[in-house]
Amino acid sequence: MISKKMQNFIKRASWIRKMFEEGIRLKKKYGPDNVFDFSLGNPHMPPPDEFYEAVKREIKGGHGYTENAGLFETREIIASYLTKEHGIEFSPDEIILTCGAAGGLNVIFKALLNPEEEVIVPVPFFMEYAFYIDNHGGKIKTVKTKDNFNLDLKVINDNLNLSTKAIVINSPNNPTGQVYLEETLKELAMILESHRKKTKKIVYLILDEPYRKIVYDNIKLPSIFQIYSETIVVTSFSKDLSLAGERIGYLAIHPHCFHKAELIAACILANRILGFVNAPVLMQRVIKHMLEVSVDSKVYEKNRDLLCEGLSALGFSFILPKGAFYLFPKAPIADDISFVQALQKERILAVPGSGFGTPGYFRLAFCVKEDVIKKSMPYFEKVAYKFGLIS
Amino acid sequence: MISKKMQNFIKRASWIRKMFEEGIRLKKKYGPDNVFDFSLGNPHMPPPDEFYEAVKREIKGGHGYTENAGLFETREIIASYLTKEHGIEFSPDEIILTCGAAGGLNVIFKALLNPEEEVIVPVPFFMEYAFYIDNHGGKIKTVKTKDNFNLDLKVINDNLNLSTKAIVINSPNNPTGQVYLEETLKELAMILESHRKKTKKIVYLILDEPYRKIVYDNIKLPSIFQIYSETIVVTSFSKDLSLAGERIGYLAIHPHCFHKAELIAACILANRILGFVNAPVLMQRVIKHMLEVSVDSKVYEKNRDLLCEGLSALGFSFILPKGAFYLFPKAPIADDISFVQALQKERILAVPGSGFGTPGYFRLAFCVKEDVIKKSMPYFEKVAYKFGLIS
Repeated sequence: MISKKMQNFIKRASWIRKMFEEGIRLKKKYGPDNVFDFSLGNPHMPPPDEFYEAVKREIKGGHGYTENAGLFETREIIASYLTKEHGIEFSPDEIILTCGAAGGLNVIFKALLNPEEEVIVPVPFFMEYAFYIDNHGGKIKTVKTKDNFNLDLKVINDNLNLSTKAIVINSPNNPTGQVYLEETLKELAMILESHRKKTKKIVYLILDEPYRKIVYDNIKLPSIFQIYSETIVVTSFSKDLSLAGERIGYLAIHPHCFHKAELIAACILANRILGFVNAPVLMQRVIKHMLEVSVDSKVYEKNRDLLCEGLSALGFSFILPKGAFYLFPKAPIADDISFVQALQKERILAVPGSGFGTPGYFRLAFCVKEDVIKKSMPYFEKVAYKFGLIS
Repeated sequence: MISKKMQNFIKRASWIRKMFEEGIRLKKKYGPDNVFDFSLGNPHMPPPDEFYEAVKREIKGGHGYTENAGLFETREIIASYLTKEHGIEFSPDEIILTCGAAGGLNVIFKALLNPEEEVIVPVPFFMEYAFYIDNHGGKIKTVKTKDNFNLDLKVINDNLNLSTKAIVINSPNNPTGQVYLEETLKELAMILESHRKKTKKIVYLILDEPYRKIVYDNIKLPSIFQIYSETIVVTSFSKDLSLAGERIGYLAIHPHCFHKAELIAACILANRILGFVNAPVLMQRVIKHMLEVSVDSKVYEKNRDLLCEGLSALGFSFILPKGAFYLFPKAPIADDISFVQALQKERILAVPGSGFGTPGYFRLAFCVKEDVIKKSMPYFEKVAYKFGLIS
């Protein structure tokens, strides 16, 4: 039989599966265009035109194994991109191409974690982190955030101990759309530095930032590399190039971190032995032409405005997303799972906040066609009436 | 710092790294064409022409996440291919697309293994198995094979116990080129069946067969699905389509195995949470056109003959590979690492048998251009003189 742990995971995830199956049932019953699917972070836009040109150029480039870290020429281009973007000199050795950010996070945890070491994760959070940490024997330690989902630095400080190995932050954030500004990250760095001075223990800051290029209102994100040297950034081209299914991303290790050589060696070995071996090679070749390119985030910004204006007028409350393509409103009742089922009755598919460690909320992914948002509004209105948000 | 386990792995692998670095140094010094690199299982042939046509057809098909198991249409085509090949009815649900066979093996071990459960692996073996099993908390139990590297069924039987969860066999075999015939697999199945009757414990047979289409002398491989129902086959398109770096493969779960639904659910979940999420999607689309296609294994057969005739005349002894593209000769001295270093002095790159759990041998990968083999012969001759194989 399968492992006991997996049996447990499957049982615990059964409500998600049921919800997902109900979505499929609804699409069959009403036709996919008559169901308003806000449940998946799967970008609806095609990749930019440059992608198809790059594939044409690179298709005959060879399809064999690459170095486990990835093609040198691609890592070289990423290194100069990061050097320019962050004002810190990167070398190709500090870059490891991965099977998306999910692959990259598994590589990092495999490289870092001894049994029972702790990884701090602010909630709400992308639930897969819990699996990734557990895969490699670590323990997740969730910590609450402020009312606006900004980092609560006091709580983070209180949760540091001798077993803390890392903290994972995701900015722009899934599911809240919050971004962490320079001041916050600087304070966080000071807390981690002072912990190191007191305990001689490094706490790695793992910044998961696949949405870095999808930000709104002309906001400029800070550079974590300028702020804290024990940093690993993990990212992917899934969102900013709409290549989610192609599984291509990378991790970048801070050029000035203490145990750099060991950390790089461990990540490369982890990439190999976890079965990734190397990031998919055609995509390794393709993305070297696309570092400066991204989908037009204005499209998502327009979606955000449409959705936020609509739901605000219906009495829903939420923080305005500054990046990514998720809205995380408060559910009008405490039981977010029941509320999401009520949305389903109106053919609206969403994910309960419980799926992000935060009951009482729900997530809407607005990486959909504008039309889906427009057509969904009368149905949101019905729900708003039903739950007394408007009368 | 990095995890203690990874520190250890890196230290233990340092001799391999040194050997690899020496290879790079030699190529720089003499030029890559003047070094005879038999060290890597990286196919030298390009993919078949159908590959480029399939990419052209599928490139606009969409690049978002797929179901974690992979695209239904591709799994459907694989299912009918397997139905035809094995004479047993497969459904798309029994197929899971993976990030190569390495990804597939990690998925299976994650799905199956409770802490300390044992996986039997006959030696010599592809050393990565040890990492894959360890990744998911299992214990590898290596068992010896016969002099011709065929399975020693008595030894396997003696090593079964209440903690045995699976046995992994790789046929055609890396590094020996041996294949296991129907009679052997039937006897193995009987042993596992009788163990189940005695102990109520299922032992899964994991057949890693990426070289199934690369066989010589018109040999016909048996179908394990006809022989043992507690079977999971894992394979990839890395070798038979020369797509090693694209990371595309699949696993097929026997339609009649006992806990099929749980096993499928666990493998799909494992594929997701290990960070693969889904197999690279363009390749998922492409390979659905290529199930019946493969590179011309006659090219490798010619290489095999050339290498075997050459080395045989120089006094090396080995079994003739019946499939895959590796030769595993006995080293003329017990210390295979020293012997491989002696080969390096003549600009021949090989891998010591120690890297496959079998000191006293060395592996030559002949998935190289014919010319490499031809030009290497005078250098093998020098080594043969030096070690007294010829005089």
